[in-house]
Amino acid sequence: MPVNLPLPTADALFPVPGLSLGIAEAGVRKQNRKDLTVMLLAPGTAVGAVFTRNRFCAAPVQVCRNHLASGHGIRAIVVNTGNANAGTGEEGLRRAQATCAALATRLGLEPHQVLPFSTGVIMEQLPYDRVIAGLPAALADACAENWLRAAEAIMTTDTQPKAASRQVVIGGQTVTVTGIAKGAGMIRPNMATMLGFVATDANLAPDLLPALTKALADRSFNRVTVDGDTSTNDSFLLMATRQAQHPQITDMTTAEGQALEAALLEVAQYLAHAMVRDGEGATKFISIQVDGGKTRDECLKVAYAIAHSPLVKTAFFASDPNLGRILAAVGYAGIDDLDQSLIELFLDDVHVATRGGRHPAYQEQDGARVMAQTEIRVRVELGRGSWSDTVWTCDFSHDYVTINADYRS
Amino acid sequence: MPVNLPLPTADALFPVPGLSLGIAEAGVRKQNRKDLTVMLLAPGTAVGAVFTRNRFCAAPVQVCRNHLASGHGIRAIVVNTGNANAGTGEEGLRRAQATCAALATRLGLEPHQVLPFSTGVIMEQLPYDRVIAGLPAALADACAENWLRAAEAIMTTDTQPKAASRQVVIGGQTVTVTGIAKGAGMIRPNMATMLGFVATDANLAPDLLPALTKALADRSFNRVTVDGDTSTNDSFLLMATRQAQHPQITDMTTAEGQALEAALLEVAQYLAHAMVRDGEGATKFISIQVDGGKTRDECLKVAYAIAHSPLVKTAFFASDPNLGRILAAVGYAGIDDLDQSLIELFLDDVHVATRGGRHPAYQEQDGARVMAQTEIRVRVELGRGSWSDTVWTCDFSHDYVTINADYRS
Repeated sequence: MPVNLPLPTADALFPVPGLSLGIAEAGVRKQNRKDLTVMLLAPGTAVGAVFTRNRFCAAPVQVCRNHLASGHGIRAIVVNTGNANAGTGEEGLRRAQATCAALATRLGLEPHQVLPFSTGVIMEQLPYDRVIAGLPAALADACAENWLRAAEAIMTTDTQPKAASRQVVIGGQTVTVTGIAKGAGMIRPNMATMLGFVATDANLAPDLLPALTKALADRSFNRVTVDGDTSTNDSFLLMATRQAQHPQITDMTTAEGQALEAALLEVAQYLAHAMVRDGEGATKFISIQVDGGKTRDECLKVAYAIAHSPLVKTAFFASDPNLGRILAAVGYAGIDDLDQSLIELFLDDVHVATRGGRHPAYQEQDGARVMAQTEIRVRVELGRGSWSDTVWTCDFSHDYVTINADYRS
Repeated sequence: MPVNLPLPTADALFPVPGLSLGIAEAGVRKQNRKDLTVMLLAPGTAVGAVFTRNRFCAAPVQVCRNHLASGHGIRAIVVNTGNANAGTGEEGLRRAQATCAALATRLGLEPHQVLPFSTGVIMEQLPYDRVIAGLPAALADACAENWLRAAEAIMTTDTQPKAASRQVVIGGQTVTVTGIAKGAGMIRPNMATMLGFVATDANLAPDLLPALTKALADRSFNRVTVDGDTSTNDSFLLMATRQAQHPQITDMTTAEGQALEAALLEVAQYLAHAMVRDGEGATKFISIQVDGGKTRDECLKVAYAIAHSPLVKTAFFASDPNLGRILAAVGYAGIDDLDQSLIELFLDDVHVATRGGRHPAYQEQDGARVMAQTEIRVRVELGRGSWSDTVWTCDFSHDYVTINADYRS
């Protein structure tokens, strides 16, 4: 049961002009399961992508990087669930490439105009013959209204589909941003991976895409964690079909650029948060904001130390205002010259620690009240500088162990 | 129920000439509980210490560092459970110092000849009046045979006492090494901490102690992890009473030095492993050896990435030979130029992955057989250089969540 995550509805997901989606059953791992999705992109679509930094990256990630580097216009993507095509060596690369080639042939494209994505079990070869055999049905199914069905088709251990949509008026034109994502642990090397796909019809100068994609990821998908593990297949793709009739945006710092970026960020953050809310065994959604760092990096070190501490996460699960665990995580986060006497700690509006020690006015019942909520904000002030950053995570419950211990059986 | 950890018996713990131990009930946190231990060291005893690297270190750690830096001969230590005196600010320092002063007065010493150690709840002031009031009873109890009672008195969430003893003949003289430790999670900011105390009567040149202590810790206490959290109070103290009648050891690379170091390492490793075997909820004891690194540091990065991955640890709990989780952890360990095609992975004698992919001869039943054992060796070959290192950890079970979610109630 995800934490405060409403089910998306098909009519709340606006089609993106220039993009259609088709879904089919390819039988990659299970029968009677929609496990194949294609997205068809109009000519002129610009894309940006961010991939896992795991050195053990999967074959489709390597193929995506190559195809994006080739500079040709990307016109289609193909996503399968059931098999991640990771840890599969040269043969895995060959199969990912063959899948792209098969789709390209059917569409009259070059293979490097297709990006492949896979998620599922790892260290088993992709049954690419079945993926390829499923392509005609997926193509026949393609239409602009299929976002919710695509969100369902890319799920693995997710308990519900994740999708969001926004519209914003730019230059008198209504511009749409719609996205879907999957992922429920920040890695599932078996049912691997977070995948995020966000599309807009905004007319963005193509050279803006790479930096924009990175900037969005760094405030959304790159700031969420369930268990600290990084998948072999994590991918976030931003697609701009550029069909909206407003003047081209060539600078994200203009009013139009800012309005669009805000809409894109809302969708990306909603999807990223949705993965945490649906985190394996999650019962609480936790924001961890670290202020007063000398650098962004040290804020993130502290935030992730808190977010990844099994002791902190089990305390959240137990609604136990166990401040020592949070302060200890701050202490071991890796800031060598940290002065503990400058640390301030807040749980929502409750000031629990000051100058590195218990706040004189703090009462455990106030901490316990916040910890019992399903949405909790932790804020740490380091007193070292003016940088801030925020990460989002969930608690650590019995169900996490159950899901991850039992999940292949 | 610890993993393959026999209960120590009093008669297997050899007294260390020049060292006596006294235990008392001070009522720090609970009544009818031995919670105070003093150790009295003969004049001339040399000590070395390694402390937590957590920047949020506790008051007694700060006082220990100061007293050791003062250069005066350490003659006594005082250990309380029930309260860690961490996150307690200036007042905490004052109370730790006052405790040392009180014991020093009773023994005719200077306060800086006493080292304080505390473990228990954090962010509450140490009831030092009770500790001080308990000192006379502890001193009256002091004798050389009290090692097992001391091992019991320093326990917090440990399910059983941890103690080990070895003897070795040096220069025709029998030399003793005896040690005790406590700790069951690699942090308990509430019932905090790992504490390790190892003593020998070997006649060691005092200036050998600091480097020797660090070398021992780096092959024992600094290589074990239960949950990746680092306590505010972690401390390891090595004491050499120097009363054995062999010629002084002035160089650890001599035959005598090597024989002694081997005995010390056996005791330190036994105690460190005992903490993992008694890890919260542990059902398996896991060695993770990483070979072929360019540096020691990168071997440790990979070993800890595996040891700390909740997904890997839950797979061990489930006896699931989920190799993808281990390989993924290798991939995100932080070696930027890792070449996945050079990675070899073994579970005990089973060669499960080669060149970064599944070994052609690997059969899941062989992996499952190893994973079902209570003692498991993971070995990763990085193919980058000639460094190796090993860490020890346990699996991640339902009981871990239960213990840490429920433990303050």
